[in-house]
Amino acid sequence: MALKIYGVSRSRATRPLWLARELGLEYEQVPVIQSYRLPDPAAPDAPLNTASPAFLAINPNGQVPSIDDGGFVLHESLAITLYLARKHGGPLAPRDAREEALMTMWSLWAATNVEDNALQVMMHLPAAAPKHDAARAQAAVAALRRPFAALERGLQAGGGHLVGGRFTVADLNVAEVVRYAQPAKELFAEFPAVQSWIAACQSRPAFQAMMAEREKEPA
Amino acid sequence: MALKIYGVSRSRATRPLWLARELGLEYEQVPVIQSYRLPDPAAPDAPLNTASPAFLAINPNGQVPSIDDGGFVLHESLAITLYLARKHGGPLAPRDAREEALMTMWSLWAATNVEDNALQVMMHLPAAAPKHDAARAQAAVAALRRPFAALERGLQAGGGHLVGGRFTVADLNVAEVVRYAQPAKELFAEFPAVQSWIAACQSRPAFQAMMAEREKEPA
Repeated sequence: MALKIYGVSRSRATRPLWLARELGLEYEQVPVIQSYRLPDPAAPDAPLNTASPAFLAINPNGQVPSIDDGGFVLHESLAITLYLARKHGGPLAPRDAREEALMTMWSLWAATNVEDNALQVMMHLPAAAPKHDAARAQAAVAALRRPFAALERGLQAGGGHLVGGRFTVADLNVAEVVRYAQPAKELFAEFPAVQSWIAACQSRPAFQAMMAEREKEPA
Repeated sequence: MALKIYGVSRSRATRPLWLARELGLEYEQVPVIQSYRLPDPAAPDAPLNTASPAFLAINPNGQVPSIDDGGFVLHESLAITLYLARKHGGPLAPRDAREEALMTMWSLWAATNVEDNALQVMMHLPAAAPKHDAARAQAAVAALRRPFAALERGLQAGGGHLVGGRFTVADLNVAEVVRYAQPAKELFAEFPAVQSWIAACQSRPAFQAMMAEREKEPA
């Protein structure tokens, strides 16, 4: 059975979708929609969504992505990418226990120190955003300066990468969280190592192919 | 050089401190205080705290715990416990790649689905809390029902444990996050598997010894 990735591309499923392309994995994407994006997720003709009983039987958290890898079901996007990288090996995977620890550390760091505020930037900063709120956006930008300073220092110490002096699943995980903050151009301008690093991550063919596929989905 | 654990016991350092006792590790605890708990962290006679330049040189995020394991510095409490468990092996550690993935998944799940609301319960629910706020506390309790339902289902499927049918670092990590919500007794009463599980986790001698040590610190 091929790898199944549950989740539309306009979701945190970007993380395993990007990684699968980096690794050249065959996979089937099951386009589960986040229920909050549907007018009536309970409607019987609604597409498969995170509130559908059929999906809740897979992930009771009602979140995407999840994967099914030959019968092994796993949730949490950043854990999924770490698992797939380790399973398939190569330069994106950890080479030893310390690299593995640092990749897990950076993934947890992004989820707990960056993601909430980065999402606030994405939702509230762009003038055209339906929920535009300059004050909330600026508070989030201000709160991101400290983690960005730590990221800057980590990238400087690591020669432009987070772990092992090469692009790994840690860069992928953190870059996909930091991406949400990219409307805050002035924030990135303050941290040149972060700016060069995310540009390098996003210039990778696997990222670009994933984003091109994502653009085909309705916004 | 022995393992150094940075952080007072009244902090997320409980996680590596509990684990170190489970594994019987020798360690030196460096009691770094969270700067927000000090009246003036910038005072030259302040104890070592998360805003001290000496500590920021170790962890630029200004958070505890961090560890130094023979020169290997690692942050993020849940990554530290996963690393130490893997390094030292035994029943708390993952036995294979799937167990490892599930342990990482549950750790990320607790950090992103439970921790913020559990901390709201801890800070605002007890009538004697300095920041008592019944409305905020009840909103957090309400928000925890969904992750608690997922945890209940996971524990039922796992025979009272999260991974591998035995107590592992995944139980330790999740239990230490869920602990913050324990003032909400009615919430736990709704989820009997969660209630039995956390009671079993907290009856472990290593947890009790860690908490006894913690009680000696000023509140």
